[in-house]
Amino acid sequence: MQAVALLGGPSEQWPENIEQIFRDAKIAGHLILASDRGTLFLKRWDILPDVAVGDFDSLKKDEKLILNDIPDVRYSQPIKNYTDSEQLFLTALADYHVDNLFIYGATGGRLDHFFVNIFTFLRPELCRFVNQVELVDKQNVFKFYSPGKYLIKYRSGYKYIGFGNLEKTIDFSILDARYELNNFSSEYPNFFSSNEFINHKDFEIKFKAGIILAIYSKDINRYR
Amino acid sequence: MQAVALLGGPSEQWPENIEQIFRDAKIAGHLILASDRGTLFLKRWDILPDVAVGDFDSLKKDEKLILNDIPDVRYSQPIKNYTDSEQLFLTALADYHVDNLFIYGATGGRLDHFFVNIFTFLRPELCRFVNQVELVDKQNVFKFYSPGKYLIKYRSGYKYIGFGNLEKTIDFSILDARYELNNFSSEYPNFFSSNEFINHKDFEIKFKAGIILAIYSKDINRYR
Repeated sequence: MQAVALLGGPSEQWPENIEQIFRDAKIAGHLILASDRGTLFLKRWDILPDVAVGDFDSLKKDEKLILNDIPDVRYSQPIKNYTDSEQLFLTALADYHVDNLFIYGATGGRLDHFFVNIFTFLRPELCRFVNQVELVDKQNVFKFYSPGKYLIKYRSGYKYIGFGNLEKTIDFSILDARYELNNFSSEYPNFFSSNEFINHKDFEIKFKAGIILAIYSKDINRYR
Repeated sequence: MQAVALLGGPSEQWPENIEQIFRDAKIAGHLILASDRGTLFLKRWDILPDVAVGDFDSLKKDEKLILNDIPDVRYSQPIKNYTDSEQLFLTALADYHVDNLFIYGATGGRLDHFFVNIFTFLRPELCRFVNQVELVDKQNVFKFYSPGKYLIKYRSGYKYIGFGNLEKTIDFSILDARYELNNFSSEYPNFFSSNEFINHKDFEIKFKAGIILAIYSKDINRYR
Protein backbone atom coordinates (compact mmCIF):
# COMPACT_ATOMS: atom_id res chain seq x y z
CA MET A 1 0.00 0.00 0.00
CA GLN A 2 1.08 3.54 -0.74
CA ALA A 3 0.64 6.41 1.71
CA VAL A 4 0.71 10.20 1.60
CA ALA A 5 1.03 12.45 4.63
CA LEU A 6 0.54 16.16 5.23
CA LEU A 7 2.53 17.61 8.13
CA GLY A 8 2.33 21.05 9.68
CA GLY A 9 5.01 22.87 7.66
CA PRO A 10 4.11 26.13 5.91
CA SER A 11 1.96 25.91 2.79
CA GLU A 12 4.35 28.16 0.85
CA GLN A 13 6.76 25.24 0.71
CA TRP A 14 4.24 22.72 -0.62
CA PRO A 15 4.41 21.63 -4.26
CA GLU A 16 2.06 23.65 -6.47
CA ASN A 17 -0.12 20.63 -7.25
CA ILE A 18 -0.54 19.43 -3.68
CA GLU A 19 -4.33 19.37 -3.74
CA GLN A 20 -4.27 17.19 -6.86
CA ILE A 21 -1.71 14.86 -5.25
CA PHE A 22 -3.99 14.16 -2.29
CA ARG A 23 -7.07 14.00 -4.50
CA ASP A 24 -5.38 11.38 -6.71
CA ALA A 25 -4.21 9.45 -3.65
CA LYS A 26 -7.78 9.33 -2.31
CA ILE A 27 -9.13 8.04 -5.62
CA ALA A 28 -6.35 5.42 -5.79
CA GLY A 29 -7.20 4.23 -2.29
CA HIS A 30 -3.85 5.14 -0.78
CA LEU A 31 -3.59 5.64 2.97
CA ILE A 32 -3.88 9.34 3.84
CA LEU A 33 -2.37 10.71 7.04
CA ALA A 34 -2.25 14.19 8.53
CA SER A 35 -0.72 15.78 11.56
CA ASP A 36 -2.55 18.48 13.51
CA ARG A 37 -3.50 21.38 11.19
CA GLY A 38 -2.75 19.24 8.13
CA THR A 39 -6.12 17.67 8.94
CA LEU A 40 -7.89 20.98 8.36
CA PHE A 41 -6.19 21.58 5.03
CA LEU A 42 -7.32 18.21 3.78
CA LYS A 43 -10.84 18.99 4.96
CA ARG A 44 -10.76 22.24 3.02
CA TRP A 45 -10.15 20.09 -0.07
CA ASP A 46 -12.98 17.75 1.01
CA ILE A 47 -10.52 14.97 1.73
CA LEU A 48 -10.94 12.99 4.92
CA PRO A 49 -7.64 11.52 6.17
CA ASP A 50 -7.59 7.91 7.33
CA VAL A 51 -5.25 8.77 10.19
CA ALA A 52 -4.77 12.02 12.12
CA VAL A 53 -2.03 12.58 14.69
CA GLY A 54 -1.70 15.52 17.06
CA ASP A 55 -2.92 17.31 20.12
CA PHE A 56 -5.21 19.44 17.92
CA ASP A 57 -4.86 22.26 20.43
CA SER A 58 -4.67 24.79 17.63
CA LEU A 59 -8.08 23.70 16.27
CA LYS A 60 -11.17 25.66 17.27
CA LYS A 61 -14.12 23.82 18.81
CA ASP A 62 -16.09 23.57 15.56
CA GLU A 63 -12.96 22.59 13.66
CA LYS A 64 -12.48 19.64 16.00
CA LEU A 65 -15.76 18.09 14.78
CA ILE A 66 -13.87 16.63 11.84
CA LEU A 67 -12.04 14.32 14.26
CA ASN A 68 -15.31 12.40 14.81
CA ASP A 69 -15.25 11.32 11.19
CA ILE A 70 -11.61 10.21 11.02
CA PRO A 71 -11.27 6.43 11.46
CA ASP A 72 -7.95 6.55 13.36
CA VAL A 73 -7.15 9.55 15.56
CA ARG A 74 -3.98 9.36 17.63
CA TYR A 75 -3.53 11.98 20.30
CA SER A 76 -0.07 13.25 21.25
CA GLN A 77 1.09 12.24 24.68
CA PRO A 78 1.40 15.07 27.24
CA ILE A 79 5.01 14.07 27.89
CA LYS A 80 6.08 13.32 24.37
CA ASN A 81 8.66 10.78 23.47
CA TYR A 82 7.85 11.42 19.84
CA THR A 83 6.82 14.54 18.00
CA ASP A 84 3.54 14.36 16.08
CA SER A 85 5.51 13.83 12.87
CA GLU A 86 7.48 10.96 14.33
CA GLN A 87 4.31 9.35 15.64
CA LEU A 88 2.77 9.70 12.19
CA PHE A 89 5.80 8.13 10.46
CA LEU A 90 5.74 5.18 12.88
CA THR A 91 2.00 4.74 12.48
CA ALA A 92 2.24 4.55 8.69
CA LEU A 93 5.36 2.41 8.48
CA ALA A 94 5.23 0.15 11.55
CA ASP A 95 1.46 -0.15 12.19
CA TYR A 96 -0.03 0.11 8.70
CA HIS A 97 3.01 -1.46 7.01
CA VAL A 98 2.78 0.87 4.03
CA ASP A 99 5.25 0.18 1.22
CA ASN A 100 5.99 3.82 0.52
CA LEU A 101 5.32 7.01 2.43
CA PHE A 102 5.32 10.37 0.63
CA ILE A 103 5.59 13.22 3.08
CA TYR A 104 4.53 16.82 2.42
CA GLY A 105 4.73 19.83 4.72
CA ALA A 106 7.96 18.61 6.32
CA THR A 107 10.16 21.57 5.34
CA GLY A 108 10.33 25.30 6.00
CA GLY A 109 8.95 27.30 8.88
CA ARG A 110 10.19 26.11 12.24
CA LEU A 111 13.43 24.41 11.33
CA ASP A 112 13.73 22.61 14.67
CA HIS A 113 10.74 20.61 13.41
CA PHE A 114 12.39 20.12 10.04
CA PHE A 115 15.55 18.73 11.65
CA VAL A 116 13.50 16.22 13.62
CA ASN A 117 11.78 15.17 10.38
CA ILE A 118 15.18 14.33 8.90
CA PHE A 119 17.19 12.96 11.81
CA THR A 120 14.41 10.79 13.20
CA PHE A 121 15.15 8.41 10.33
CA LEU A 122 18.46 7.54 11.99
CA ARG A 123 16.63 6.20 15.06
CA PRO A 124 16.45 2.41 15.38
CA GLU A 125 12.63 2.42 15.27
CA LEU A 126 12.59 4.19 11.91
CA CYS A 127 15.90 3.55 10.16
CA ARG A 128 14.77 0.15 8.89
CA PHE A 129 12.11 1.98 6.85
CA VAL A 130 14.31 4.68 5.30
CA ASN A 131 14.23 3.32 1.76
CA GLN A 132 10.42 3.61 1.75
CA VAL A 133 10.27 7.30 2.55
CA GLU A 134 10.24 10.43 0.43
CA LEU A 135 9.91 14.04 1.63
CA VAL A 136 8.68 16.44 -1.02
CA ASP A 137 8.43 20.22 -1.14
CA LYS A 138 8.04 22.68 -4.01
CA GLN A 139 11.73 22.68 -4.86
CA ASN A 140 13.28 19.55 -3.37
CA VAL A 141 12.75 15.80 -2.98
CA PHE A 142 14.51 14.00 -0.12
CA LYS A 143 15.28 10.30 -0.33
CA PHE A 144 17.13 8.15 2.19
CA TYR A 145 19.24 5.06 1.55
CA SER A 146 20.48 2.28 3.81
CA PRO A 147 23.81 0.60 2.99
CA GLY A 148 23.88 -1.04 -0.44
CA LYS A 149 24.02 -0.24 -4.12
CA TYR A 150 21.37 1.90 -5.83
CA LEU A 151 20.47 3.30 -9.20
CA ILE A 152 19.75 7.00 -8.77
CA LYS A 153 17.00 7.83 -11.23
CA TYR A 154 16.80 11.06 -13.15
CA ARG A 155 13.65 13.03 -12.34
CA SER A 156 12.31 15.42 -14.87
CA GLY A 157 12.71 19.04 -13.79
CA TYR A 158 15.35 18.43 -11.15
CA LYS A 159 18.69 19.62 -12.50
CA TYR A 160 20.65 19.11 -9.29
CA ILE A 161 21.13 16.39 -6.74
CA GLY A 162 23.11 16.55 -3.52
CA PHE A 163 24.23 13.67 -1.32
CA GLY A 164 25.18 13.51 2.31
CA ASN A 165 26.06 10.90 4.87
CA LEU A 166 23.87 11.67 7.89
CA GLU A 167 26.15 9.64 10.16
CA LYS A 168 29.41 7.70 9.91
CA THR A 169 29.83 6.19 6.44
CA ILE A 170 32.22 3.75 4.81
CA ASP A 171 33.24 3.57 1.15
CA PHE A 172 30.57 5.88 -0.23
CA SER A 173 30.93 6.10 -4.01
CA ILE A 174 29.05 8.05 -6.68
CA LEU A 175 29.59 6.64 -10.17
CA ASP A 176 28.73 8.08 -13.61
CA ALA A 177 27.33 11.36 -12.27
CA ARG A 178 28.75 14.82 -13.12
CA TYR A 179 30.97 14.68 -10.02
CA GLU A 180 32.22 11.30 -8.91
CA LEU A 181 33.13 10.22 -5.41
CA ASN A 182 35.28 7.20 -4.70
CA ASN A 183 35.19 5.22 -1.47
CA PHE A 184 34.63 8.22 0.74
CA SER A 185 34.63 7.34 4.43
CA SER A 186 33.92 9.69 7.31
CA GLU A 187 33.16 9.55 11.01
CA TYR A 188 30.82 12.56 10.82
CA PRO A 189 28.16 13.91 8.43
CA ASN A 190 29.21 15.60 5.20
CA PHE A 191 27.14 17.06 2.42
CA PHE A 192 28.00 17.38 -1.27
CA SER A 193 25.70 19.74 -3.16
CA SER A 194 25.05 20.46 -6.83
CA ASN A 195 25.82 17.14 -8.44
CA GLU A 196 24.11 16.59 -11.81
CA PHE A 197 22.87 13.83 -14.08
CA ILE A 198 24.85 13.49 -17.32
CA ASN A 199 22.37 13.80 -20.21
CA HIS A 200 19.51 12.87 -17.85
CA LYS A 201 21.06 9.44 -17.38
CA ASP A 202 20.55 7.46 -14.16
CA PHE A 203 23.72 6.82 -12.18
CA GLU A 204 24.88 4.67 -9.30
CA ILE A 205 25.74 5.12 -5.63
CA LYS A 206 27.02 2.52 -3.20
CA PHE A 207 28.24 2.51 0.40
CA LYS A 208 28.84 0.11 3.25
CA ALA A 209 27.63 1.91 6.38
CA GLY A 210 25.38 4.70 7.56
CA ILE A 211 22.36 6.41 6.05
CA ILE A 212 22.78 8.50 2.90
CA LEU A 213 20.40 11.38 2.20
CA ALA A 214 19.84 12.43 -1.42
CA ILE A 215 18.25 15.79 -2.19
CA TYR A 216 16.93 16.29 -5.71
CA SER A 217 16.72 20.02 -6.26
CA LYS A 218 15.93 22.70 -8.80
CA ASP A 219 16.28 26.43 -9.15
CA ILE A 220 13.09 28.40 -9.16
CA ASN A 221 12.61 32.10 -9.65
CA ARG A 222 12.98 33.15 -6.08
CA TYR A 223 13.96 36.78 -5.96
CA ARG A 224 11.61 39.55 -4.99
CA MET B 1 35.68 42.57 14.32
CA GLN B 2 32.09 41.61 13.55
CA ALA B 3 30.97 40.41 10.13
CA VAL B 4 27.68 39.97 8.29
CA ALA B 5 27.21 37.88 5.16
CA LEU B 6 24.43 37.58 2.59
CA LEU B 7 24.28 34.23 0.79
CA GLY B 8 22.16 33.22 -2.18
CA GLY B 9 19.11 31.75 -0.39
CA PRO B 10 15.65 33.04 -1.26
CA SER B 11 14.69 36.50 -0.01
CA GLU B 12 11.37 35.21 1.35
CA GLN B 13 13.36 33.56 4.15
CA TRP B 14 15.30 36.68 5.14
CA PRO B 15 14.41 38.54 8.33
CA GLU B 16 12.02 41.43 7.69
CA ASN B 17 14.60 44.02 8.72
CA ILE B 18 17.45 42.68 6.62
CA GLU B 19 18.18 45.95 4.83
CA GLN B 20 18.48 47.74 8.17
CA ILE B 21 20.77 45.01 9.50
CA PHE B 22 23.25 45.51 6.66
CA ARG B 23 22.88 49.29 6.78
CA ASP B 24 23.68 49.29 10.51
CA ALA B 25 26.62 46.93 9.93
CA LYS B 26 28.04 49.29 7.30
CA ILE B 27 27.75 52.29 9.62
CA ALA B 28 29.38 50.33 12.45
CA GLY B 29 32.29 49.39 10.21
CA HIS B 30 31.64 45.66 10.32
CA LEU B 31 33.01 43.45 7.55
CA ILE B 32 30.36 42.83 4.90
CA LEU B 33 30.50 39.74 2.70
CA ALA B 34 28.25 38.48 -0.07
CA SER B 35 28.13 35.43 -2.28
CA ASP B 36 27.12 35.68 -5.91
CA ARG B 37 23.70 37.35 -6.25
CA GLY B 38 23.85 38.52 -2.65
CA THR B 39 26.22 41.14 -4.06
CA LEU B 40 23.43 42.59 -6.22
CA PHE B 41 20.97 42.78 -3.37
CA LEU B 42 23.43 44.76 -1.31
CA LYS B 43 24.00 47.06 -4.27
CA ARG B 44 20.26 47.63 -4.55
CA TRP B 45 20.45 48.93 -0.98
CA ASP B 46 23.49 51.06 -1.92
CA ILE B 47 25.75 48.91 0.21
CA LEU B 48 29.09 47.85 -1.21
CA PRO B 49 30.35 44.59 0.30
CA ASP B 50 33.99 44.36 1.37
CA VAL B 51 34.23 40.80 0.08
CA ALA B 52 32.35 39.03 -2.71
CA VAL B 53 32.64 35.31 -3.47
CA GLY B 54 31.23 33.48 -6.48
CA ASP B 55 31.47 32.73 -10.16
CA PHE B 56 29.00 35.57 -10.82
CA ASP B 57 27.76 33.65 -13.88
CA SER B 58 24.20 34.65 -13.10
CA LEU B 59 25.08 38.35 -13.27
CA LYS B 60 24.46 40.27 -16.50
CA LYS B 61 27.32 42.19 -18.09
CA ASP B 62 26.32 45.57 -16.65
CA GLU B 63 25.62 43.99 -13.27
CA LYS B 64 29.20 42.72 -13.17
CA LEU B 65 30.52 46.29 -13.12
CA ILE B 66 29.95 46.37 -9.37
CA LEU B 67 32.77 43.86 -8.98
CA ASN B 68 35.28 46.56 -10.00
CA ASP B 69 34.40 48.50 -6.86
CA ILE B 70 34.59 45.62 -4.37
CA PRO B 71 37.95 45.53 -2.56
CA ASP B 72 38.20 41.73 -2.34
CA VAL B 73 36.59 39.56 -5.03
CA ARG B 74 37.18 35.82 -4.82
CA TYR B 75 36.20 33.77 -7.81
CA SER B 76 34.94 30.20 -7.43
CA GLN B 77 37.28 27.54 -8.73
CA PRO B 78 36.09 25.65 -11.85
CA ILE B 79 36.56 22.35 -10.02
CA LYS B 80 35.27 23.33 -6.64
CA ASN B 81 36.53 21.90 -3.43
CA TYR B 82 34.34 24.39 -1.63
CA THR B 83 30.96 25.85 -2.44
CA ASP B 84 30.78 29.65 -2.61
CA SER B 85 29.27 29.68 0.88
CA GLU B 86 32.07 27.58 2.31
CA GLN B 87 34.68 29.80 0.65
CA LEU B 88 32.95 32.83 2.13
CA PHE B 89 32.88 31.32 5.65
CA LEU B 90 36.58 30.47 5.44
CA THR B 91 37.47 33.91 4.10
CA ALA B 92 35.71 35.67 6.97
CA LEU B 93 36.84 33.37 9.77
CA ALA B 94 40.30 32.17 8.71
CA ASP B 95 41.55 35.08 6.56
CA TYR B 96 39.89 38.11 8.14
CA HIS B 97 39.83 36.56 11.63
CA VAL B 98 36.43 38.04 12.42
CA ASP B 99 35.17 37.46 15.95
CA ASN B 100 31.58 36.77 14.93
CA LEU B 101 29.95 35.98 11.62
CA PHE B 102 26.21 36.53 11.16
CA ILE B 103 24.95 34.72 8.09
CA TYR B 104 21.75 35.54 6.19
CA GLY B 105 20.29 33.85 3.11
CA ALA B 106 21.55 30.41 4.22
CA THR B 107 18.14 28.71 4.46
CA GLY B 108 15.27 27.78 2.16
CA GLY B 109 15.23 27.27 -1.58
CA ARG B 110 17.68 24.63 -2.71
CA LEU B 111 18.06 22.52 0.41
CA ASP B 112 21.19 20.75 -0.86
CA HIS B 113 22.82 24.18 -0.42
CA PHE B 114 21.27 24.56 3.01
CA PHE B 115 22.65 21.21 4.15
CA VAL B 116 26.14 22.23 3.05
CA ASN B 117 25.76 25.48 5.02
CA ILE B 118 25.11 23.43 8.17
CA PHE B 119 27.34 20.39 7.82
CA THR B 120 30.38 22.29 6.60
CA PHE B 121 30.85 23.40 10.20
CA LEU B 122 31.80 19.83 11.11
CA ARG B 123 34.79 19.97 8.74
CA PRO B 124 38.19 20.38 10.40
CA GLU B 125 38.84 23.69 8.58
CA LEU B 126 35.67 25.25 10.00
CA CYS B 127 34.75 23.40 13.19
CA ARG B 128 37.23 25.40 15.27
CA PHE B 129 35.15 28.51 14.46
CA VAL B 130 31.70 27.13 15.23
CA ASN B 131 31.12 29.17 18.37
CA GLN B 132 31.57 32.38 16.36
CA VAL B 133 28.86 31.67 13.82
CA GLU B 134 25.14 32.44 13.68
CA LEU B 135 22.74 31.69 10.82
CA VAL B 136 19.61 33.83 10.83
CA ASP B 137 16.39 33.67 8.84
CA LYS B 138 12.95 35.19 9.40
CA GLN B 139 11.85 32.50 11.83
CA ASN B 140 14.98 30.75 13.15
CA VAL B 141 18.44 31.44 14.55
CA PHE B 142 21.07 28.68 14.33
CA LYS B 143 23.97 28.55 16.77
CA PHE B 144 26.68 25.93 17.02
CA TYR B 145 28.60 24.81 20.10
CA SER B 146 31.84 22.91 20.54
CA PRO B 147 32.28 20.70 23.64
CA GLY B 148 31.97 22.59 26.92
CA LYS B 149 29.43 24.28 29.16
CA TYR B 150 27.26 27.17 27.95
CA LEU B 151 24.58 29.50 29.13
CA ILE B 152 21.77 29.47 26.57
CA LYS B 153 20.36 32.96 26.53
CA TYR B 154 16.71 33.75 26.11
CA ARG B 155 16.03 35.79 22.99
CA SER B 156 12.99 37.98 22.85
CA GLY B 157 10.38 36.66 20.44
CA TYR B 158 11.69 33.13 20.21
CA LYS B 159 9.40 30.86 22.18
CA TYR B 160 11.06 27.60 21.17
CA ILE B 161 14.55 26.19 21.01
CA GLY B 162 15.64 22.82 19.63
CA PHE B 163 18.97 21.07 20.14
CA GLY B 164 20.71 18.41 18.15
CA ASN B 165 24.03 16.64 18.13
CA LEU B 166 25.27 16.87 14.55
CA GLU B 167 27.69 14.01 15.11
CA LYS B 168 28.63 11.58 17.89
CA THR B 169 28.12 13.17 21.30
CA ILE B 170 28.94 12.25 24.88
CA ASP B 171 27.10 13.30 28.05
CA PHE B 172 24.94 16.01 26.50
CA SER B 173 22.83 17.64 29.23
CA ILE B 174 20.19 20.37 29.16
CA LEU B 175 19.57 21.88 32.60
CA ASP B 176 16.82 24.20 33.85
CA ALA B 177 14.95 24.32 30.55
CA ARG B 178 11.31 23.16 30.08
CA TYR B 179 12.56 19.70 29.06
CA GLU B 180 15.76 18.44 30.62
CA LEU B 181 18.22 16.00 29.17
CA ASN B 182 20.75 14.14 31.28
CA ASN B 183 24.04 12.79 30.01
CA PHE B 184 22.68 11.79 26.62
CA SER B 185 25.27 9.99 24.51
CA SER B 186 24.82 8.85 20.91
CA GLU B 187 26.91 7.60 18.02
CA TYR B 188 24.68 9.35 15.45
CA PRO B 189 22.85 12.68 15.12
CA ASN B 190 19.61 13.27 17.03
CA PHE B 191 17.40 16.28 17.20
CA PHE B 192 15.14 17.42 20.05
CA SER B 193 12.64 20.08 19.03
CA SER B 194 10.33 22.43 20.91
CA ASN B 195 12.21 22.98 24.13
CA GLU B 196 11.34 26.22 25.94
CA PHE B 197 12.77 28.76 28.33
CA ILE B 198 11.10 28.79 31.76
CA ASN B 199 9.87 32.35 32.40
CA HIS B 200 12.34 33.68 29.82
CA LYS B 201 15.21 32.50 32.02
CA ASP B 202 18.57 31.51 30.53
CA PHE B 203 19.52 27.85 31.03
CA GLU B 204 22.56 25.64 30.69
CA ILE B 205 23.83 22.98 28.32
CA LYS B 206 27.00 20.94 28.58
CA PHE B 207 28.56 18.05 26.65
CA LYS B 208 31.90 16.34 26.18
CA ALA B 209 32.14 15.55 22.48
CA GLY B 210 30.76 16.55 19.09
CA ILE B 211 29.11 19.70 17.79
CA ILE B 212 25.70 20.73 19.13
CA LEU B 213 23.34 22.78 16.96
CA ALA B 214 20.77 24.99 18.68
CA ILE B 215 17.84 26.36 16.70
CA TYR B 216 15.92 29.23 18.26
CA SER B 217 12.52 29.28 16.62
CA LYS B 218 9.12 30.94 16.64
CA ASP B 219 5.72 30.39 15.14
CA ILE B 220 4.62 32.89 12.55
CA ASN B 221 1.32 33.11 10.78
CA ARG B 222 2.14 30.84 7.91
CA TYR B 223 -1.08 29.55 6.43
CA ARG B 224 -2.46 30.72 3.14
